[in-house]
Amino acid sequence: QDSDTTGTSKQDELSLITETPEEGFEVAVQLARKGVTTTQPNKKVLFMLRDVYSKDPDALIASSHVVAVHYQTVAAANNYWHE
Amino acid sequence: QDSDTTGTSKQDELSLITETPEEGFEVAVQLARKGVTTTQPNKKVLFMLRDVYSKDPDALIASSHVVAVHYQTVAAANNYWHE
Amino acid sequence: QDSDTTGTSKQDELSLITETPEEGFEVAVQLARKGVTTTQPNKKVLFMLRDVYSKDPDALIASSHVVAVHYQTVAAANNYWHE
Amino acid sequence: QDSDTTGTSKQDELSLITETPEEGFEVAVQLARKGVTTTQPNKKVLFMLRDVYSKDPDALIASSHVVAVHYQTVAAANNYWHE
Amino acid sequence: QDSDTTGTSKQDELSLITETPEEGFEVAVQLARKGVTTTQPNKKVLFMLRDVYSKDPDALIASSHVVAVHYQTVAAANNYWHE
Amino acid sequence: QDSDTTGTSKQDELSLITETPEEGFEVAVQLARKGVTTTQPNKKVLFMLRDVYSKDPDALIASSHVVAVHYQTVAAANNYWHE
Repeated sequence: QDSDTTGTSKQDELSLITETPEEGFEVAVQLARKGVTTTQPNKKVLFMLRDVYSKDPDALIASSHVVAVHYQTVAAANNYWHE
Repeated sequence: QDSDTTGTSKQDELSLITETPEEGFEVAVQLARKGVTTTQPNKKVLFMLRDVYSKDPDALIASSHVVAVHYQTVAAANNYWHE
Repeated sequence: QDSDTTGTSKQDELSLITETPEEGFEVAVQLARKGVTTTQPNKKVLFMLRDVYSKDPDALIASSHVVAVHYQTVAAANNYWHE
Repeated sequence: QDSDTTGTSKQDELSLITETPEEGFEVAVQLARKGVTTTQPNKKVLFMLRDVYSKDPDALIASSHVVAVHYQTVAAANNYWHE
Repeated sequence: QDSDTTGTSKQDELSLITETPEEGFEVAVQLARKGVTTTQPNKKVLFMLRDVYSKDPDALIASSHVVAVHYQTVAAANNYWHE
Repeated sequence: QDSDTTGTSKQDELSLITETPEEGFEVAVQLARKGVTTTQPNKKVLFMLRDVYSKDPDALIASSHVVAVHYQTVAAANNYWHE
């Protein structure tokens, strides 16, 4: 999970509804990171860890897995972006 | 999983229904922690373990994964917070 | 998974339907443990293993994950305890 | 996963429909084992492996997780055994 | 995952619809293997790896888990083979 | 996850809707890789890692698992390609 923890500042309230599947994927990535930063809010620690997991295939696959679960949720929320 | 095990005291009965996706995420985090504290209720042990998993990328990703599964449940419970 | 394998004795037949989300969580924990005791019915072995996994963050997160999957099932079974 | 690979002989055709949640759990366990025996049909190897995983907390939790996914499928198939 | 990568040749187009739960399970196994051969198409490497994972309980449980996720999809696709 | 990160260039906008289950599988693989490249955009690192995970049974099974979760989403999006 990237250590970019801007996540959801007060103005851009968290929402699952997006215009496109692409934007939906970004929300899924944001939710996956939020799951990490909620447990470990310390940005310095996160930044240090990034160097480890971003070069570890198992960690990269595992984080892609978390995004996949959230994307399933976001896609259902948007009725799979059917017109 | 953070060792904050206030979780659900008798007054604030556990509920999946929330006003916003943000509050829904907090319930998902609470449920994920409840799954840990149910298996390991000893706060001292949990506090000691926090030091380990909160600096372990694999553990942070794995706990984000548990939150993602609960968030899928909570989001469905709230019909994805459609108006 | 706690080695409490009372699980479902003949009188309290297994049911997914509960009054509250809190009771639903208890059924999910019971189902997660049942998945372990079905594979390893030997209580002495389970008790011995408890000492290991109950102090292992990865195991605690993994068991919380199993509870999360069952809780998703139980919550859907109860239509998310909507009135 | 237990090495009992009677699984589904020709007479008792595989079905997801059961009378009770308890029977549904047995089908889920059967499906989880079938996923192992399909990949490793050699009973001698399976029996040897049983000695390993049946005393390994991580493996016991992981197999409970597979049962949980199948149980979610079987429960939905039976409309959660609502009367 | 077995290194049998016949999977879907041009004639037998991939389909999720099957007559029976048993056939549905075969499609789920096929999809799980397809997920491996898509990432690693080299049959020699796959054959070599088979010797490793087919005797590793964790790998056997993990592959049973992938089959379980696909089986959930195939079962829903066939409305759980209700008559 | 293959290091082919063509993924979605601006012209072929990401969409979950496909003609066939086979094409749906390709989208699922694309989404699984996108989950990796979003976290690790550096192609050189990805290429280096491919040598590692493409010969590791656990990593191959884990990536097949991510594809399975996305395929469940894509299949639901296409109503399981029922005519």
